[in-house]
Amino acid sequence: MRISALVERTGVPLATVKYYLREGLLPPGISTGATQARYTEDHVRRLQVIKALTSAAGLPLQKVKVVLELIDNPGDDMYSALGRAVASLPPYRDDAADDFPRARALLEHVGQLYDPGYAATAQLEHALEAADEAGIGMTVERFEAYARQIRGIAEFELQRMEGSDLSPIEYAVLGTALYEPVILAMRRLAHQDIAAKRLGNTASTG
Amino acid sequence: MRISALVERTGVPLATVKYYLREGLLPPGISTGATQARYTEDHVRRLQVIKALTSAAGLPLQKVKVVLELIDNPGDDMYSALGRAVASLPPYRDDAADDFPRARALLEHVGQLYDPGYAATAQLEHALEAADEAGIGMTVERFEAYARQIRGIAEFELQRMEGSDLSPIEYAVLGTALYEPVILAMRRLAHQDIAAKRLGNTASTG
Repeated sequence: MRISALVERTGVPLATVKYYLREGLLPPGISTGATQARYTEDHVRRLQVIKALTSAAGLPLQKVKVVLELIDNPGDDMYSALGRAVASLPPYRDDAADDFPRARALLEHVGQLYDPGYAATAQLEHALEAADEAGIGMTVERFEAYARQIRGIAEFELQRMEGSDLSPIEYAVLGTALYEPVILAMRRLAHQDIAAKRLGNTASTG
Repeated sequence: MRISALVERTGVPLATVKYYLREGLLPPGISTGATQARYTEDHVRRLQVIKALTSAAGLPLQKVKVVLELIDNPGDDMYSALGRAVASLPPYRDDAADDFPRARALLEHVGQLYDPGYAATAQLEHALEAADEAGIGMTVERFEAYARQIRGIAEFELQRMEGSDLSPIEYAVLGTALYEPVILAMRRLAHQDIAAKRLGNTASTG
């Protein structure tokens, strides 16, 4: 297809497509003349991924590059490639710390991996600290309850990775980032549903 | 306590405390002289709540006011007060839409309340749309799996509301906002833990 069809299919503006080509985020098309090139479904897919990472997930282009390079060349150590790819997602923090006492105590308590070098460990520590400061500190009982349910979600997600058309890196990065807002909205809606049923509200239910 | 002790206890700068007093977010202290006032534990608590809402949860002051008014005066209809309080949390969207077809179909499928006027319904619709566009659209099977686990989390949270020292509004708002990053970090860590165990990685486990 021509570049104009690429624009139409993906909704990414022409100037942006050209910019991605110049920056090497999008591989060049197959040249069909001095000023024309032909693009494929792979280009459509790559543009969808870039669009999802930038607009829905909020990655800066520099981080998008890291993810695309890992999609193209995950290398031999898939575990490490997955870790680096997911660590490219926001939130970003500069952490000088190499120990995260709240996160460590709770993760060790439930027998989960404690990797201080993984971005989500710092993310958990800071979230626990903020809850503490707000006077709603995490309890062991609550953490256990969360860990059990969240593990159920994560197990499902990893099982479905195997049957997916997407590459593992693509699946992990897009699935992590794009399902986060889904899960948060679902939690708020579950609260509302349970509260409506308990408080005897008559709002319409499906 | 004096205002200086309030600053020390909460870490909120003096100028900010004075600003909250002028704006009515913080009730005045008990006057002990022409230029002095005495503050109580209630002031400490209120400042912790304001701090959590502004810095951890990212609310603008105008939304903080709405939440504080609901904490002070929830009125007779607790269900509606809880809904309005949680709807004061980000993300904020201007939605002209009054139907959310993706969210409706899935919520009705699992027998959950579908309230198009509730902010989280629009939030879910947009999150589902972004996943669709990224080529990882939600399936019914996945939604059912998520809904089951998330309901487990939400049930636990509502049970613990009853035994909490906090007012229902405070508990709902702080619990919704401050545990969201906890849950997201825990999901990323669960992925890592499961992947490490499957892919035979030797990283240290607790």
